[in-house]
Amino acid sequence: MKNPIENLNKNFDSRVRLGIMSALIVNAEVNFNELKELIQVTDGNLASHLKALEENGYIKVHKGFIGRKTNTTYTATKAGEKAFKLHLDALEEMIRSAK
Amino acid sequence: MKNPIENLNKNFDSRVRLGIMSALIVNAEVNFNELKELIQVTDGNLASHLKALEENGYIKVHKGFIGRKTNTTYTATKAGEKAFKLHLDALEEMIRSAK
Repeated sequence: MKNPIENLNKNFDSRVRLGIMSALIVNAEVNFNELKELIQVTDGNLASHLKALEENGYIKVHKGFIGRKTNTTYTATKAGEKAFKLHLDALEEMIRSAK
Repeated sequence: MKNPIENLNKNFDSRVRLGIMSALIVNAEVNFNELKELIQVTDGNLASHLKALEENGYIKVHKGFIGRKTNTTYTATKAGEKAFKLHLDALEEMIRSAK
């Protein structure tokens, strides 16, 4: 048996990060509240994972306004898309080895 | 879009736990050193994840001997196999939604 988790990316261990990246792969741009509602996590939990992904260069943050209200949106970077797709490939390989 | 991580099991967030469960699904019984070599982690890291999986009732520990040397082996429980398979199904669903 070869190492089933060899190519899994440590930065995507958390389910919350998988959820964020999935949402940003499917949608060009998502705001904080949409993400929170989609993934069903607390503000603090979501914010800390968004920060980590930003620090990894996997997502970009855009601070904007809708009228007078702030509207913070997120997009996946090219590097983030690539890293996430490699992680999904590695997950698929792990699943195949276990089934 | 529906929640892409709805059915992911928090207990399997860690890659190390995915590796342990994969190994125990494929092989009836695996010992500590075999797991360590397969997954390429430190003793401490492996031991702490094995302990967590044992506390969840997902794996069973068997303390034995080969000659005078201790030989600790691990097997997946029925509950562990079931939980892991549900987690793999949820990962597959997440992957499908993101591709």
